[in-house]
Amino acid sequence: MPDIKIYLQEKKKVVDDALTGYMSSLEGNPPTIQKAMEYSLFAGGKRLRPILTLASFEAVDGDPGRVLPFACAIELIHTYSLIHDDLPAMDDDDYRRGVLTNHKVHGEAAAILAGDALLTEAFRIMTDSRVVSSMDPAVVLDVIHDISGAAGAPGMVGGQMADVEAEGKEVDISHVEYIHTHKTGALITASVRAGGKLGGGSEEAIESLSSYGRTIGLAFQIIDDVLNVEGEEEVLGKSVGSDAGRGKATYPGVLGINKSKETADAFINTAISSLKRFGDKAEPLKKIARYIGDRKK
Amino acid sequence: MPDIKIYLQEKKKVVDDALTGYMSSLEGNPPTIQKAMEYSLFAGGKRLRPILTLASFEAVDGDPGRVLPFACAIELIHTYSLIHDDLPAMDDDDYRRGVLTNHKVHGEAAAILAGDALLTEAFRIMTDSRVVSSMDPAVVLDVIHDISGAAGAPGMVGGQMADVEAEGKEVDISHVEYIHTHKTGALITASVRAGGKLGGGSEEAIESLSSYGRTIGLAFQIIDDVLNVEGEEEVLGKSVGSDAGRGKATYPGVLGINKSKETADAFINTAISSLKRFGDKAEPLKKIARYIGDRKK
Repeated sequence: MPDIKIYLQEKKKVVDDALTGYMSSLEGNPPTIQKAMEYSLFAGGKRLRPILTLASFEAVDGDPGRVLPFACAIELIHTYSLIHDDLPAMDDDDYRRGVLTNHKVHGEAAAILAGDALLTEAFRIMTDSRVVSSMDPAVVLDVIHDISGAAGAPGMVGGQMADVEAEGKEVDISHVEYIHTHKTGALITASVRAGGKLGGGSEEAIESLSSYGRTIGLAFQIIDDVLNVEGEEEVLGKSVGSDAGRGKATYPGVLGINKSKETADAFINTAISSLKRFGDKAEPLKKIARYIGDRKK
Repeated sequence: MPDIKIYLQEKKKVVDDALTGYMSSLEGNPPTIQKAMEYSLFAGGKRLRPILTLASFEAVDGDPGRVLPFACAIELIHTYSLIHDDLPAMDDDDYRRGVLTNHKVHGEAAAILAGDALLTEAFRIMTDSRVVSSMDPAVVLDVIHDISGAAGAPGMVGGQMADVEAEGKEVDISHVEYIHTHKTGALITASVRAGGKLGGGSEEAIESLSSYGRTIGLAFQIIDDVLNVEGEEEVLGKSVGSDAGRGKATYPGVLGINKSKETADAFINTAISSLKRFGDKAEPLKKIARYIGDRKK
């Protein structure tokens, strides 16, 4: 496989092109809502989740074309969650990825509705007859069920609720882990599982991918927390030190910086070792795991 | 069939019991989010949309048991939309159905997240293997696609955006109709279509049901507007005259009260006449249409 940076660039382009095509195919949306949706969807996301879906699909030997709409749907769900998390009533963030947050540009009403619309549109993509008519509909339903569980109250939404509630409170490591596995980990795991399931992976293969997803998800969030303490603002595109200032529940806050980095490294190693069964086909997934461990933004 | 009020009471009980059972089966949700979801879900809704799904299912001769989870899912989507519409950044309402709105009781963060969770949960219900394993998965995907289109930017969310944007502006009847057909009509139509499709209705039957849904949806919203002008606060459970005070785009605002009532009556008659093909089996749907025309709250 090519260098991981080139791989990520190539896959990001595939996802970006698909998202651009999809959004421009939408007709009849009020311009305000369409603009607010596109604003955040094309605000410089790394496309980590859809790339994970594509890479998992490759690991189980699937044909990449069919999985792309699902990868895009997951990115829509991720984007909606960022828009709502940034709202004044939630994290009240003015900047994300170096640009103004959705509600700062489009106003709160449009930001709430753009989030709602992106979430709903994700399910519309995953049930589009042009996409699913050539697929096993039972597998598609299973994947949608998995994703909705990961995105909803038992997953991401529950994690965000716990995160908001933990602000300014004393929390232990199991509470921080609950927040991270739900707020970030659940959708990352679902992204990986979706690729495996749509690619026709065996039950054991999906179990291995789930373990990979859970561990890189945790590592990803720990490193996010670490970067919030010691990252460079220009590189990150958002303010450093904001978690501590706000009394957020974080790994460095509970374990300290060094122990947090060790924990992330351990999760990355576990993630990589859970991919053994796939051999060379999981090379991209392994390199993505290492990339997450080494990321600076 | 029994008197329409008894019919509606019976069906409401079926829906309420299913919703109660479903919500109590959810495990692992943070208590705050679970409570906020249940608060609005059990705040006295008439269950019009799920009852329409059940009645349409009966009209095409389906077996009611299988359709119930989809009827519940639609009620979850409707409930989420009310929670988000009431937020300070949107309609800023303190009361709905005579009780405090979600964000007034649970705070804005929990209200936004409870809405997000209800919307996502709806898609989780509709893809639950315990529900769909005995059904044609292609039909289920088609129904979910229909519902997500009706709920998202091309439907309800788009209508709400247009409604918020129209506040205080001079609008013509076609603009008011756009808002109403999207904000309210789309999900009502989808409720009716879902029952027909899940019950195995022919393409022509679904077309007739769609026409019924579109016209009762418009009548429903016109009467809502009329009641906001001349209804009784104690009966409605919300303030009267609020639309005019806020410069909302409404039928009475554009056509006046009498012409609005005539228009609603005409839509009800059109709705009833589009049900001819179903004979006696559509008796509940016809009576629901008349009930909508005569409602006082």
